Amino acid sequence: MAFRKFLPLFDRVLVERLIAETVTKGGIMLPEKAQGKVLQATVVAVGPGSVNQKGHVLPVSVKVGEKVLLPEYGGTKVSLEDKDYFLFRDGDILGKYVE
Amino acid sequence: MAFRKFLPLFDRVLVERLIAETVTKGGIMLPEKAQGKVLQATVVAVGPGSVNQKGHVLPVSVKVGEKVLLPEYGGTKVSLEDKDYFLFRDGDILGKYVE
Amino acid sequence: MAFRKFLPLFDRVLVERLIAETVTKGGIMLPEKAQGKVLQATVVAVGPGSVNQKGHVLPVSVKVGEKVLLPEYGGTKVSLEDKDYFLFRDGDILGKYVE
Amino acid sequence: MAFRKFLPLFDRVLVERLIAETVTKGGIMLPEKAQGKVLQATVVAVGPGSVNQKGHVLPVSVKVGEKVLLPEYGGTKVSLEDKDYFLFRDGDILGKYVE
Amino acid sequence: MAFRKFLPLFDRVLVERLIAETVTKGGIMLPEKAQGKVLQATVVAVGPGSVNQKGHVLPVSVKVGEKVLLPEYGGTKVSLEDKDYFLFRDGDILGKYVE
Amino acid sequence: MAFRKFLPLFDRVLVERLIAETVTKGGIMLPEKAQGKVLQATVVAVGPGSVNQKGHVLPVSVKVGEKVLLPEYGGTKVSLEDKDYFLFRDGDILGKYVE
Amino acid sequence: MAFRKFLPLFDRVLVERLIAETVTKGGIMLPEKAQGKVLQATVVAVGPGSVNQKGHVLPVSVKVGEKVLLPEYGGTKVSLEDKDYFLFRDGDILGKYVE
Repeated sequence: MAFRKFLPLFDRVLVERLIAETVTKGGIMLPEKAQGKVLQATVVAVGPGSVNQKGHVLPVSVKVGEKVLLPEYGGTKVSLEDKDYFLFRDGDILGKYVE
Repeated sequence: MAFRKFLPLFDRVLVERLIAETVTKGGIMLPEKAQGKVLQATVVAVGPGSVNQKGHVLPVSVKVGEKVLLPEYGGTKVSLEDKDYFLFRDGDILGKYVE
Repeated sequence: MAFRKFLPLFDRVLVERLIAETVTKGGIMLPEKAQGKVLQATVVAVGPGSVNQKGHVLPVSVKVGEKVLLPEYGGTKVSLEDKDYFLFRDGDILGKYVE
Repeated sequence: MAFRKFLPLFDRVLVERLIAETVTKGGIMLPEKAQGKVLQATVVAVGPGSVNQKGHVLPVSVKVGEKVLLPEYGGTKVSLEDKDYFLFRDGDILGKYVE
Repeated sequence: MAFRKFLPLFDRVLVERLIAETVTKGGIMLPEKAQGKVLQATVVAVGPGSVNQKGHVLPVSVKVGEKVLLPEYGGTKVSLEDKDYFLFRDGDILGKYVE
Repeated sequence: MAFRKFLPLFDRVLVERLIAETVTKGGIMLPEKAQGKVLQATVVAVGPGSVNQKGHVLPVSVKVGEKVLLPEYGGTKVSLEDKDYFLFRDGDILGKYVE
Repeated sequence: MAFRKFLPLFDRVLVERLIAETVTKGGIMLPEKAQGKVLQATVVAVGPGSVNQKGHVLPVSVKVGEKVLLPEYGGTKVSLEDKDYFLFRDGDILGKYVE
């Protein structure tokens, strides 16, 4: 499944981070520095999957549109049409939010 | 098995640490520093399991609701609805308490 | 096989170290420092075993009640009902004493 | 598939980086230093693929002519007829652009 | 095969080092320091063998009573009935002396 | 296939580096220092191939007489009849030049 | 195949280095320091071979009596009847000289 004509390879997953909260629950404006890195994201494209020793493709475990929880570190920034996305390996994604 | 709509991926296990003892057996109040990290926890959600070279899923060895003993180090903090939980790999959990 | 309701996971083995000799053969009291770490221990609980790539369980090689020789280093301390026990991987236990 | 008589071995992929943008969208000339490394490239030759433990060849996942996204680091420079190309392992290429 | 009721586990081999030469061929007494570590030893007990991924036991390649050549480094000292023995992995023993 | 009675073992490949260009295209003599290491070479002997876990031999992917591109680093110098040759692992050779 | 009653274990190969050249071709005596380490050697004993995951023995690739080329580094010195020999793993021997 490609996104803006970009298809991740192997077991890579392309995600878009959700927008950081800029106002606390009490209504106080958060300076950019205090906003911290957003670890929730939406899956926008997935690779076919990893290939095992026999050449079989093991599909990734998340689907386009799912909300996922990213690890604190890792990931590769990818700019597509001037917007930042991130590539993670399927195995590094911590979990997903289900309805 | 998801928890508050959060489903760990692969062989990850989501746990909630038990409440730290704040009073010694002799009834003396423990300052927060002396309470130490609680290593007992309850399993609140489990991933499907790890995937082997053939693509088969090897289920995790603990179930939701079980009491487990965590290692001193490791684990990833996950905030869900403003409460802290921790993600551990199934293989890193030391043991479980059985009735 | 659980011990005081605690069941080690995978190929972990719970042991209780034997009591350190406090008196030399010649009858001289040994100060605590000179007693050294006791490497002999009794197996009190064993996990089901490690899981191989096919999901088969490979049972551990020691049984509850057996006397074993521990390596100098390693092991995780586990307090159960205010008493110290130690968790070792089956593969790290050096040998066992047989009748 | 060879390129200028050069055939990469195993799962290596020979790519030609696209030309760096020398003018910003607003028409301002970019000094060479600010142009940064171009991460988009065209596949010009591919090796047969990696060989697994049984001696079977696992073909690479990109084809000659495809546009790909390279990682920031890695790759080996190869000069062919006085022009610079780069060799990457198939598994290190992040993704490809599809029509 | 146990030795003084001690049975090594897995592919461990219990050996007893031969006595160090204290006199040179020319009849000169060697001070302890110059005697160097004895690398020849006798096998006194062997474990069942290592366990492969399928759970099959791969027996060790030396037998009790055989003379072996130890590597310069490695091995774990084991005291049995106040005498020092050494545990080596089967794979670390360099060779054996055959009649 | 041996060369001057020397047969590489396993998946090693013996190569002879091509002669360094001592004159630039414009006809200027290059001092030795500026000539740089020659990365093009001819295969003069190949080993039988690597051996996989089942004992099957996986032949190397280059043949005697082929022109190859060597990596910048690695390789072992071998003097045969006072001439320098180099041993590389098959997997480290970047590519080959085909007619 | 044992040598002076010494049999290497697994895939180890016992070799005897050839005598270092003490005179240059031009007849000049070489001081010991300038003689350098001799990398050519004769195979005097071989182990049965390495053991794969299924317990099958994979024989070594050199035979007793063959001339081999040793790597610059590695190897374990073994004294047998007051003479120095060296143990190498089969996989570390670079090549052999064939008639």
